[in-house]
Amino acid sequence: MSWLDETIMARKGVARGKAGETYSITEESQGKYHYVYGAFVDPVLTVDPGAVVSAETHDAFEGAIKHETDSPTKLLNFPYLNPQNGPIYVNGAEKGDCLAIYIKSIVPRGPQPRGTTVIMPEFGGLVPTADTALLTAPLPERVRKLDVDAETGVRWNDKITLPYEPFIGTIGTAPEIEAISSLVPDYYGGNMDLPDICPETVIYLPVNTKGAYLYLGDCHAAQGDGELCGVAVEHPTVTTIQIDLIKNWTIKTPRLENDRFYMTIGSSRPMEDAARGAYRELIRWMVSDFGFEEIDAYMLLTQCGRVRLGNMVDPKYTVGASVLKSIVGVAN
Amino acid sequence: MSWLDETIMARKGVARGKAGETYSITEESQGKYHYVYGAFVDPVLTVDPGAVVSAETHDAFEGAIKHETDSPTKLLNFPYLNPQNGPIYVNGAEKGDCLAIYIKSIVPRGPQPRGTTVIMPEFGGLVPTADTALLTAPLPERVRKLDVDAETGVRWNDKITLPYEPFIGTIGTAPEIEAISSLVPDYYGGNMDLPDICPETVIYLPVNTKGAYLYLGDCHAAQGDGELCGVAVEHPTVTTIQIDLIKNWTIKTPRLENDRFYMTIGSSRPMEDAARGAYRELIRWMVSDFGFEEIDAYMLLTQCGRVRLGNMVDPKYTVGASVLKSIVGVAN
Amino acid sequence: MSWLDETIMARKGVARGKAGETYSITEESQGKYHYVYGAFVDPVLTVDPGAVVSAETHDAFEGAIKHETDSPTKLLNFPYLNPQNGPIYVNGAEKGDCLAIYIKSIVPRGPQPRGTTVIMPEFGGLVPTADTALLTAPLPERVRKLDVDAETGVRWNDKITLPYEPFIGTIGTAPEIEAISSLVPDYYGGNMDLPDICPETVIYLPVNTKGAYLYLGDCHAAQGDGELCGVAVEHPTVTTIQIDLIKNWTIKTPRLENDRFYMTIGSSRPMEDAARGAYRELIRWMVSDFGFEEIDAYMLLTQCGRVRLGNMVDPKYTVGASVLKSIVGVAN
Amino acid sequence: MSWLDETIMARKGVARGKAGETYSITEESQGKYHYVYGAFVDPVLTVDPGAVVSAETHDAFEGAIKHETDSPTKLLNFPYLNPQNGPIYVNGAEKGDCLAIYIKSIVPRGPQPRGTTVIMPEFGGLVPTADTALLTAPLPERVRKLDVDAETGVRWNDKITLPYEPFIGTIGTAPEIEAISSLVPDYYGGNMDLPDICPETVIYLPVNTKGAYLYLGDCHAAQGDGELCGVAVEHPTVTTIQIDLIKNWTIKTPRLENDRFYMTIGSSRPMEDAARGAYRELIRWMVSDFGFEEIDAYMLLTQCGRVRLGNMVDPKYTVGASVLKSIVGVAN
Repeated sequence: MSWLDETIMARKGVARGKAGETYSITEESQGKYHYVYGAFVDPVLTVDPGAVVSAETHDAFEGAIKHETDSPTKLLNFPYLNPQNGPIYVNGAEKGDCLAIYIKSIVPRGPQPRGTTVIMPEFGGLVPTADTALLTAPLPERVRKLDVDAETGVRWNDKITLPYEPFIGTIGTAPEIEAISSLVPDYYGGNMDLPDICPETVIYLPVNTKGAYLYLGDCHAAQGDGELCGVAVEHPTVTTIQIDLIKNWTIKTPRLENDRFYMTIGSSRPMEDAARGAYRELIRWMVSDFGFEEIDAYMLLTQCGRVRLGNMVDPKYTVGASVLKSIVGVAN
Repeated sequence: MSWLDETIMARKGVARGKAGETYSITEESQGKYHYVYGAFVDPVLTVDPGAVVSAETHDAFEGAIKHETDSPTKLLNFPYLNPQNGPIYVNGAEKGDCLAIYIKSIVPRGPQPRGTTVIMPEFGGLVPTADTALLTAPLPERVRKLDVDAETGVRWNDKITLPYEPFIGTIGTAPEIEAISSLVPDYYGGNMDLPDICPETVIYLPVNTKGAYLYLGDCHAAQGDGELCGVAVEHPTVTTIQIDLIKNWTIKTPRLENDRFYMTIGSSRPMEDAARGAYRELIRWMVSDFGFEEIDAYMLLTQCGRVRLGNMVDPKYTVGASVLKSIVGVAN
Repeated sequence: MSWLDETIMARKGVARGKAGETYSITEESQGKYHYVYGAFVDPVLTVDPGAVVSAETHDAFEGAIKHETDSPTKLLNFPYLNPQNGPIYVNGAEKGDCLAIYIKSIVPRGPQPRGTTVIMPEFGGLVPTADTALLTAPLPERVRKLDVDAETGVRWNDKITLPYEPFIGTIGTAPEIEAISSLVPDYYGGNMDLPDICPETVIYLPVNTKGAYLYLGDCHAAQGDGELCGVAVEHPTVTTIQIDLIKNWTIKTPRLENDRFYMTIGSSRPMEDAARGAYRELIRWMVSDFGFEEIDAYMLLTQCGRVRLGNMVDPKYTVGASVLKSIVGVAN
Repeated sequence: MSWLDETIMARKGVARGKAGETYSITEESQGKYHYVYGAFVDPVLTVDPGAVVSAETHDAFEGAIKHETDSPTKLLNFPYLNPQNGPIYVNGAEKGDCLAIYIKSIVPRGPQPRGTTVIMPEFGGLVPTADTALLTAPLPERVRKLDVDAETGVRWNDKITLPYEPFIGTIGTAPEIEAISSLVPDYYGGNMDLPDICPETVIYLPVNTKGAYLYLGDCHAAQGDGELCGVAVEHPTVTTIQIDLIKNWTIKTPRLENDRFYMTIGSSRPMEDAARGAYRELIRWMVSDFGFEEIDAYMLLTQCGRVRLGNMVDPKYTVGASVLKSIVGVAN
């Protein structure tokens, strides 16, 4: 039996974690990509639980940065950044439910060098920004274009090649009444930039509005913890997900599971608040679905909880807190 | 000559700071109040610069909390909180311009006790919240209903009556592509909860989209620095503002002036980032419009800058940084 | 009756707030100034409660910066900064007691220009620091030497003269077992840089160890909220304080009172934690000494509490939270 | 060749990473344990570089908590917590040098149940504290006593046994002029609570004062990222380290290496500042010793840097930032 058969998705999903109809969202069928997470636009696709959707994602700059001599500040047009595929309307999804998204694969596409990372003014973890507003002069702009290949990896320079470890930087549902920039991570998902949101993972997202309105985009070919300069190895992909729906499982913030652990995801500022949010939800999950008493879960995680820093550069910082399945067993 | 004649509004506004046509937005003409700042809805009013608008504002709970025995968690329906009047479409306003709003008066309305403050779970500066997520049990809910009178003040108890010092808790323009909860303060204004946004003040707001889409609401009869428990003395009012438009004055975040000082307003987390943002903008303003060199402005504000804490309870904290007109003179 | 006669110092102090013997600590009698707050050194003076002590304080740079062409990084020798007078041993003081320090006067001394403010690398509120460690290049060093006169004020330039509003930047008792840099503010006082610690104020400091070991220094001729660039108008002074002792009044962090308000002082990071600490102590004080119920104090301060930002540049940020005597009455 | 032979310790240490004389610090020879990091006390031991020292460490409560029915608040006497062995005076060590400490082994000692973890009021990551000062009531105290065995692990309950993964919670050198509580982590090391400081690791510590004055203690049998409730599985041990000295290698904050990676350690608040500090030092290290250009190191770490959260509960939070040796090669 695969770990997938034991997932909450498989056991509680409307489609029981089974693949249903397949769809693809091409650049052409997507048409206009989106820069906000909200329910003010028409869905690009309407599906039943079980649907397998392959989406042609753009990189975070919508392909605008083509050469190492390009100037990001000249080519980019804030807030029209981080283009998203979707929204996908999921039949039967209502506020209080939960989407379960099984990430099947991420495949790079487009001509080489497909990968892009840049230094831009007022953006990044070690420079002044609109939030951490200081007087010192920005670093010079810089663009790196990188060959990205699923087999051979991400070529940094003659000496260094990083493994291709792709994940979805931005994925989430529409807020109930808001439409929020795809640069922001929050309770509905969004721009979490958390490397654990990778193939062979199931991510659970709160449904806030009828149909859920699922968006995704911003796939990274590699990223360190924190996404330090603010821009991972951005690249266009074909990303394939399987969408399931869990009725009446009301979660406040995104969660995920893979073959090894359960994780909760917090996005906030300062960073300790992101960590607090993630850990509190993990404790609550251990209480509701694993039979722990709250204080015991708190004390146990003190000894074995794991923290993954997603981003330390976006409008909210993102932290994942996890616990091994080998310790807590399988969720009820 | 009044201080008003020397304001930036008076000197640079399309209407030269002169009152134009008068309008009123009643509960009836407003109809549906709004819970997000965005341009996805139809304006309730379209005006030319100079317009004087009187709006019947609701309290932050839309009047739902009527008795001290009421339960906020039962009566309130998140995220349908902090109802806003508007949007007001300002003719001629375009991205890159600035609205100048002169606050003429705030008059309490409705039957006594008009004032409401409450303790709610997961909200407030000295309790665990969704952001500062802790495990300790919430404080018990509590509701205080208070007599609010423009002449006699806010009656707290037999011994304590606070002066009536009203201000607009939430005011701002629509973001360019987003629609953000009226509970949030940010670069476009919103739920700043800053007591300096009071009568006899001109507040300057960035225009992010054609027509500006001005919203306002959430007037407070009294509030301490930080709005500690999260809920000031909320009350319904008739609030009268005069709207002017400054073409091509591009400001990043809200600013204000009164007869004594110029202020910039930063909203961020952690609180030091809100203070940094406010102070950096104040320095930039002193450089662009008052003839200071940047480092000199930085050093001078070190000796005479003033900080006002707006809120320490909303999704972003709000800080105003100001400098006296008697020190820096009048803006060019 | 003067406000002083109603202070907690006057009502509960061993000396009843009455002046006792007078002492002076000259540069010569001080000899070596100190750079840590601790009880590892011999007192420079031993006094009974009631003692009036005049101390010749150095500026924060011990006078090393004499000309505008001086280079702070060459002349300053970290951590030998912020020299302190003391320690003063207070007879009868024991852990769990409280010192009450009435600040009688601060008089500038030394040849003009007596005032100094500087820009130094890695220090200040709007630049990268050792704590907010970024990659952008520091601002250029700069020194301003300023004429400081008690009557005519602080001359900034031809156009701007600031009022002389002196206060004690650094004052406190020894920790119980630690010896902490005089650059740090914390529960025992220290480098709070809070302008309310000025003449005609009584500051209350926890006694952590037998004799209290009172230190003081770092007087500022003028300072804005936050001490933005990190260096106020530093100047040498003769500072005169009257020292009283309140037995068995155990306070966790510094408090103060003047003729208008009661204040509690919090020092922490991030800034919201400093504000939380100050406000929580103020609530506890209102409960223990003013007859308030905790929740009522919390709700009332929401409507009328005031926040003063001391510093946003030191190893901990300092915030004062206050409430008017006209609202809460006089402490029991 | 072992990875140890390639360490900076082995290549630059005075003792070339070779073991010299052996010493032991027993409870008896230690006598009084210490609660501050400082140079105000006499060394318990004076050694040459190369010395191998085995120290009988106490648990963080000095063994005071023996039963699950004990009350921490009654038994513990703040600030006399986290007892430390040492100081060890290292001959030849001077300000500007660096200690290299190779952690050879940690062996649990004392009668079972040796392990202790507790919930105490005002301490922990998900409760109000002296810093994050809130009004909500503390969690109830709780004590867990746990069997700890190097072979069989840490027995949590009938179902859960955690692996024995010991590390040194607190280790560091004396500050130059301060004496700081052993509860605090900072630039000299101290209470970092970072699980990577474990056997088969070399940690590098700045020397701030002649002789270095090395302290250590507070060994943990298991700990999750962040040490969530504030108390790991504390236990008494025999900890064996080998001490080397690198002359004129001036580092600002602790670093470490093991067979897989190089790490820098930042301690600050808020947590993003700890992460910034760690990452900036890692970039500087890559520039000085691995031949990277600063911006290239910044961009590369964006793609492959790793973050480990040590503690989110101490007076400063601790974060380690690391990069794989397989990516950056071996330090010059």
